[in-house]
Amino acid sequence: MPHPNDPKLRSFIDVDPASDFPIQNLPYGVFSAKDGLAPRIGVAIGDHVLDLWQLAQDCRIDVVEPAVFAASSLNPFMALGPKVWSRTRARISELLRHDHPELRDNERLRQRALVPTADVKLYLPITVAGYTDFYSSKEHATNVGVMFRGKDNALQPNWLHMPIGYNGRASTVVVSGTKVRRPRGQLKPPSVEVPSFGPCKRLDFELEMGVVVGQPSAMGEMLNEQQAEEMIFGFVILNDWSARDIQQWEYVPLGPFQAKAFATSISPWVVTREALEPFRLQGPTQEPAPLPYLRQTQPNNYDLTLDVALRTAGMNEAARICRTNFKYMYWSSVQQLVHHASSGCAMNVGDLLGSGTISGPEKDQRGSLLEISWNGTEPLELAGGIKRSFLEDGDSLVMRGWCQGDGYRVGFGEVEGTILAAA
Amino acid sequence: MPHPNDPKLRSFIDVDPASDFPIQNLPYGVFSAKDGLAPRIGVAIGDHVLDLWQLAQDCRIDVVEPAVFAASSLNPFMALGPKVWSRTRARISELLRHDHPELRDNERLRQRALVPTADVKLYLPITVAGYTDFYSSKEHATNVGVMFRGKDNALQPNWLHMPIGYNGRASTVVVSGTKVRRPRGQLKPPSVEVPSFGPCKRLDFELEMGVVVGQPSAMGEMLNEQQAEEMIFGFVILNDWSARDIQQWEYVPLGPFQAKAFATSISPWVVTREALEPFRLQGPTQEPAPLPYLRQTQPNNYDLTLDVALRTAGMNEAARICRTNFKYMYWSSVQQLVHHASSGCAMNVGDLLGSGTISGPEKDQRGSLLEISWNGTEPLELAGGIKRSFLEDGDSLVMRGWCQGDGYRVGFGEVEGTILAAA
Repeated sequence: MPHPNDPKLRSFIDVDPASDFPIQNLPYGVFSAKDGLAPRIGVAIGDHVLDLWQLAQDCRIDVVEPAVFAASSLNPFMALGPKVWSRTRARISELLRHDHPELRDNERLRQRALVPTADVKLYLPITVAGYTDFYSSKEHATNVGVMFRGKDNALQPNWLHMPIGYNGRASTVVVSGTKVRRPRGQLKPPSVEVPSFGPCKRLDFELEMGVVVGQPSAMGEMLNEQQAEEMIFGFVILNDWSARDIQQWEYVPLGPFQAKAFATSISPWVVTREALEPFRLQGPTQEPAPLPYLRQTQPNNYDLTLDVALRTAGMNEAARICRTNFKYMYWSSVQQLVHHASSGCAMNVGDLLGSGTISGPEKDQRGSLLEISWNGTEPLELAGGIKRSFLEDGDSLVMRGWCQGDGYRVGFGEVEGTILAAA
Repeated sequence: MPHPNDPKLRSFIDVDPASDFPIQNLPYGVFSAKDGLAPRIGVAIGDHVLDLWQLAQDCRIDVVEPAVFAASSLNPFMALGPKVWSRTRARISELLRHDHPELRDNERLRQRALVPTADVKLYLPITVAGYTDFYSSKEHATNVGVMFRGKDNALQPNWLHMPIGYNGRASTVVVSGTKVRRPRGQLKPPSVEVPSFGPCKRLDFELEMGVVVGQPSAMGEMLNEQQAEEMIFGFVILNDWSARDIQQWEYVPLGPFQAKAFATSISPWVVTREALEPFRLQGPTQEPAPLPYLRQTQPNNYDLTLDVALRTAGMNEAARICRTNFKYMYWSSVQQLVHHASSGCAMNVGDLLGSGTISGPEKDQRGSLLEISWNGTEPLELAGGIKRSFLEDGDSLVMRGWCQGDGYRVGFGEVEGTILAAA
């Protein structure tokens, strides 16, 4: 049987070469259709969603119990572990192949199991156990450091020695398409003496990838590189919405709190680690060499193009404001996970690890408005004379990401969020 | 019917006046007995645990479905809301009263529903949805500030304007009695050039109270004082174990991460907000006056005595090293919860909010070894010439807390944790 990542595979379902969801991808999500059934697990293929519960009910996937696909989150499936993930994906790939008649020639089953994407509603794909946000792009950390501390002290002394991160708020992780209400909070610009409470005036996005942890680790135990990698189920695109002015006043000494607590948006499709395998590459050279517990023996970065587009209320279509790549990350997701467990911190099925804002070395590769507008000093200029230093009400922000194969792409769909006025 | 808080109430079960669990308390926990049944919900009364599931099976508590008490966490019960909490407590109080024959004179039911505490195992009482840790004792923040920044800059500029807090790690909240493995992590004392990875050398406790949130709030919505108060189900004692050396190197700029991620211990009994009602008092004067969203119209602090005792491996009994009071907290739990939701952050059933280390104005009221030993410069002297600046392997730390009524106390039992050597 050909490997599910084989570039030569074709599905009996027509898939546009520009689609994010060819047979080489097979990302998992949670959807409902017009049939009135409860939200359940599906896989994206071209312009369709493959209903895994229907397939399992029809005894077409004997790797797992059908009930696992009737769940409204991927957590029960993820809990079954990497061998089951791999066998399930291989079986789904087989069922979708152009030269495999089992589903292709069973019209009744096709009718039940293949739903046009236009007819589905997508949900948050995982129950987020814990949400952690890292800060692992050297370009981003340097940009922020230069802005606030000057060129000579841009990187904090600890930054080159470990993936700096903090615990985020899991309760407000939402799926693409969820509207984001402008947060209120305490604001104290340097120019005033006392803080006031009101709507955030410096609302920003942060372009990140999110790692979905699919296996637990025990309290008190550390992880090595291989263990950490095998716990990673897949990846999503993540928008770590940020209230820069709230953050500025609250974050010393315990870090971001309400500035990041109001919303974090993720893509509805979780692209598996296995599907990204062909796009692995070596990350930036790490100098000084990391401490032994953080050393890597293999390439743990990915060649994954990322786009950000902005559409203001007055624009007809979104304008691209950033194109960067996940490959620039200084600390890899595997290193982040190893560090996260290094104190003995237990990891859980459904933990979500934000990579940190992904900026690249070039100016048009900056993954936040803070960097794009250089803290408001160089407003972004859009068509029709529209300018932006930070996000305004009605603005819609869209992130996309994909790995480019030979004649196909393994993509994530999009993460979209529109800003509502403060309550 | 007398109110369950009536100081004159007596139970048909003998309760020592020094017991934490008179009929005026009735704290909830999760226990299992020798009967082999799964962990379920109980209430502490004197030296016994009242098995709510057995009572409900016998149709003695018609306020809720019996299944709610068969759960292995309080979350399903808490989700039913404050009216149900209150009615359930009133009914339990009635069943335990000395002048109410229903349970008192039903020997068969008593045999099934009253289990000696000595025969039970206690579990983590809640499924922790999110864990947040505040920093709301002015005395503690000042002590730490003086140590690290000097007297003139002790409090950060934001501290008097809002309850400063950060998201903690929910996956390692454990129940009293769970052994705590000394964490490993990156250490870089100021005297060396490069960090190393190894066992924490400055392991500490932090004496805190924990608020158990029993009702959710919606994303995008704020809370007022009354709404926040009604969401609070109860309180636990909380030990926020801290690796001071890991924290020192990692915490700039995003706050504590691995330094606090390895363990947080809480008491097995959740004392309800209602049971603490008679012990409310006004907290410290807040100057400057808080912003309007944080203003309080009623006393939201509690007169709750807190003790910390330490027993090293060589000691026969624990020695008290701190006695303080929850009443000293500058920011109340209600203010913490209002602030937590102020950005639109959704709160969930099972959220746990640590108060922050509770220190008092006196030297013997310091709630951490960092303060007691003044960052190691004034080691604590224990019996037999034993000294401690920070915790050593084999040390056992015990926290207790109670409100003193007239002839009875409403207490929490204890939070105990013993330090194991690093892996």
